[in-house]
Amino acid sequence: MTTAMSLFEKHADLLNEAVSALHTRTYYTPYPEHPRAYPEEANDAGKDWFAKSMNQEFKELHVESSDWIGEEVSPYFQTGIGVTYPTLSLDQLIHNAQAAKTWKDVSVGERAAILIESLDRVAKRYFDIAYATMHTTGQSFMMAFQASGPHANDRALEAVAMGYHEINRFPSEVNWVKPMGKFDLELHKTWKAQPRGIGLVIGCSTFPTWNTVPGMYASLVTGNPVIVKPHPKAILPIAIVIAELRNVLTENNLDPNIIQLAVDTLSKPITKQLAEHKDITLVDYTGGNVFGDYIESLNKITFTEKAGVNSVIIDSPKDIKGVAQNIGFSASLYSGQMCTAPQNVYVPESGIDTAEGHVSFDEVVMHITKSVEGLVNHPKMGAGTLGGIQNDNTIKRITDGGNFGGELALGGQEISNPEFENARIFTPRVVVTDYNNVEAYGHECFGPIVFIVKTKDRNHSLQIAAEMARSKGALTCLAYCTDEAMMREIESTMNAAFTPVSFNFGGAAFVNQHAAFSDFHVTGGNPAGNASFTNPEYVNKRFVWVGNRYAK
Amino acid sequence: MTTAMSLFEKHADLLNEAVSALHTRTYYTPYPEHPRAYPEEANDAGKDWFAKSMNQEFKELHVESSDWIGEEVSPYFQTGIGVTYPTLSLDQLIHNAQAAKTWKDVSVGERAAILIESLDRVAKRYFDIAYATMHTTGQSFMMAFQASGPHANDRALEAVAMGYHEINRFPSEVNWVKPMGKFDLELHKTWKAQPRGIGLVIGCSTFPTWNTVPGMYASLVTGNPVIVKPHPKAILPIAIVIAELRNVLTENNLDPNIIQLAVDTLSKPITKQLAEHKDITLVDYTGGNVFGDYIESLNKITFTEKAGVNSVIIDSPKDIKGVAQNIGFSASLYSGQMCTAPQNVYVPESGIDTAEGHVSFDEVVMHITKSVEGLVNHPKMGAGTLGGIQNDNTIKRITDGGNFGGELALGGQEISNPEFENARIFTPRVVVTDYNNVEAYGHECFGPIVFIVKTKDRNHSLQIAAEMARSKGALTCLAYCTDEAMMREIESTMNAAFTPVSFNFGGAAFVNQHAAFSDFHVTGGNPAGNASFTNPEYVNKRFVWVGNRYAK
Repeated sequence: MTTAMSLFEKHADLLNEAVSALHTRTYYTPYPEHPRAYPEEANDAGKDWFAKSMNQEFKELHVESSDWIGEEVSPYFQTGIGVTYPTLSLDQLIHNAQAAKTWKDVSVGERAAILIESLDRVAKRYFDIAYATMHTTGQSFMMAFQASGPHANDRALEAVAMGYHEINRFPSEVNWVKPMGKFDLELHKTWKAQPRGIGLVIGCSTFPTWNTVPGMYASLVTGNPVIVKPHPKAILPIAIVIAELRNVLTENNLDPNIIQLAVDTLSKPITKQLAEHKDITLVDYTGGNVFGDYIESLNKITFTEKAGVNSVIIDSPKDIKGVAQNIGFSASLYSGQMCTAPQNVYVPESGIDTAEGHVSFDEVVMHITKSVEGLVNHPKMGAGTLGGIQNDNTIKRITDGGNFGGELALGGQEISNPEFENARIFTPRVVVTDYNNVEAYGHECFGPIVFIVKTKDRNHSLQIAAEMARSKGALTCLAYCTDEAMMREIESTMNAAFTPVSFNFGGAAFVNQHAAFSDFHVTGGNPAGNASFTNPEYVNKRFVWVGNRYAK
Repeated sequence: MTTAMSLFEKHADLLNEAVSALHTRTYYTPYPEHPRAYPEEANDAGKDWFAKSMNQEFKELHVESSDWIGEEVSPYFQTGIGVTYPTLSLDQLIHNAQAAKTWKDVSVGERAAILIESLDRVAKRYFDIAYATMHTTGQSFMMAFQASGPHANDRALEAVAMGYHEINRFPSEVNWVKPMGKFDLELHKTWKAQPRGIGLVIGCSTFPTWNTVPGMYASLVTGNPVIVKPHPKAILPIAIVIAELRNVLTENNLDPNIIQLAVDTLSKPITKQLAEHKDITLVDYTGGNVFGDYIESLNKITFTEKAGVNSVIIDSPKDIKGVAQNIGFSASLYSGQMCTAPQNVYVPESGIDTAEGHVSFDEVVMHITKSVEGLVNHPKMGAGTLGGIQNDNTIKRITDGGNFGGELALGGQEISNPEFENARIFTPRVVVTDYNNVEAYGHECFGPIVFIVKTKDRNHSLQIAAEMARSKGALTCLAYCTDEAMMREIESTMNAAFTPVSFNFGGAAFVNQHAAFSDFHVTGGNPAGNASFTNPEYVNKRFVWVGNRYAK
């Protein structure tokens, strides 16, 4: 383990810095988020790498297989990217993971160092990962770069730091001396953080690394071998991450199968077989609620991020234009395909009071609609904000829905992206509807759609938002309110439904963004998910404290 | 909250000391365990209190009720103690707990101080609690005093300290400043540890306070109102604790219903109704596996301590007599009615090697049998070690079992206790059996019984012990081994089954004893239970981190 030990020395400062950042929760990242911070030639190199990888076997995993599969489709080209990945049988995957359980014998500090080293290698691949992400998820280049690159690395590092801290918080041994009156009872005691077993991490189609690496690195730092099963339509970005980690493991004379990639196709899924396998003890999952509820019902330790109905409460903003701009951007960003995107905007039928005077319900609708229209049609902003739609069904669900029992303030449309003429794009539909129409707005409608819901009054807005969060889950609530008593009311009511509130966001502050080392992502307290990136529970559930005692 | 604030100042040092002890895991207690440490007159006062409480309504809870019930029976008198408790309807209990949710608005430091104050009051009632425990559980006076008094207080303080530490580990607010190049994005952020809801704590008949206070104080310190539902045959000890806490709450102008006692009878149980109630979000449970598995299957956050098959591996001790003495005591203490008591002693058919030479299988049996016999018949030690049998069925199960398909090395017997002529006592039965007879030894046999299991060899002993731990659960494993390679093998194999190992215990070291602030009680990793007193998870699962963000 000499190599790993020198890696520990290499990364010890960063690790300690990250542990400290976890606990101060001020702004922290070791990974610059802007492409400008990286060598000028890196962008072209990444673009080339992606072009050359198309229609090839992905050999970087160094896995032998007789069956190479892959069916990813670029939302920008609307053609398959043709990358194939090695497959192994379920038995072989589990067998490999069992054999890799020696990972637990590597100290937590060395494990953390190896994992951080892999993040350093990933940082050298940010542009490769960015193009891989664009052409699987439909994210714009900038979002793909940031979300799958530095922001994902931040979340991975956060999990590594939390695991390292938690395992080190108790001593590995002590002499325990109990005074018994005439003599002392003396015992030598040791404690081990015994990993739970084998982790399975199930990825989603829209954020293939950002939503996968937290669970993956959390299980790994706590000593569990991991099998990652990405969404069949978004494999390449996480395959690169896994390949880099496998390289670091091999270089350090460790079993590369400590991390494995399992791939499948939509027609022959293997996720349930994996999740139900008796040797899988930990399951991380990001995706829809039906499958997420199934995962939670397995008698395993699960970490889910499902979906929710995110709300915007417009109560008493300073000015309506800033509000409309902010909501317009948040709802349009990646065409509403973010788990944190706002869906329902609650506005009292009598309108709202702002510092600039009363604004009627219809005027609120008009401002929001104009904001979305202006943004999506903006020649420099539109395409880059919207990105592409990951999946045909997302558009179909929205266009099939028509007016959703309300009125269409904005229909949404296919617009063109000069850079990618075949890109699948659809701009947000804005539906104005009455609070009674729960059938339409009372569940998650994934993708580019916003409901402006007419409520009886401000309290009614809050009541519906809280009820939705309790019954359907919510990751975010955006509130515009300058009345202090009402702010407290919104905060305590939404917080009681385990939903965080973002107040009066404008300018560069958007509700969609959750920063690692500061914002817990998903609270774990409502139906939107049972876990939180990265609270102590997120790592502690992955291992068991076992204490041994020795008579002196 | 001024009173609570001064309580915080009163207890802040103790609280910080306890948090520190949690993390050093060396010997720590603020509560002396020996009755000698308390005023001389306290013992008689406690005895009097208990005598006067018999056949009375327990009014200390200050709860009005039209229906007072109670059916506790003293294992020493074998007659009912006649104490009755106020009952409330399920709806009333839940309604009261809902109304008491304002407890979350008391800061965690003040909550901790109030809880510690209640432990101070409990400390003044140790003798009352000891007699109440004796005459419900059958424990000897000394065990009743220690387990229900200072040791329970230790475990409660441990949970309070862990909760206080965990909630304070993240800041309650920060200014978050992200450099964006040309400007800074600035947000004010706050975090709240939002309690999960209402906790239900279900007690057991043998350790009515020790096994109840950890969950009760853990839920309380994290801001959840709690309903305690003790075993109908062991209410009085925990009723005293609850009464003292209610007094402290009332004195501090807080709702005493933050903690409630719910009582029932064997014929009209209310536990399932309570556990299944939609408003109950947290359930702590100690007891048998069937009901424990049911509790875990509820879609709630559960903390269970069930039962397991604890093992002794006799491999290569220094001397067999010391081993036999230690096992004899551990198996006889409270007549094997401890969750940590050893049940199966694995011995190779070819016998064992000791520093004093080879010892045959039959000789091992003889030494253990003699040790138990000598202890239980010892005029000064016997009655005090054995205590009484809590429940008739425990004796019936053992006597009905006959030789359990093996050979009776010791039949077990009813012996007399000069102090209590009607005491229900039964000494340990020792059954010698072949490893094939899994039907007999392969599950928990609660009470005074020990199986000496003849195995093929040392590896076979370990293999069976580990398999039992994995499939049936285990809280403890006692191993006698002086061969270092084998010690490592036993440790890693049992630890992989999430079972702690105690090596070569002799003298005053007994496997039954788990010390607060040092030994985690139950690992939570095998079927013996899903929780651990007191790891970070034990408190973290009881609240949710919710973060709010405010534009500047």
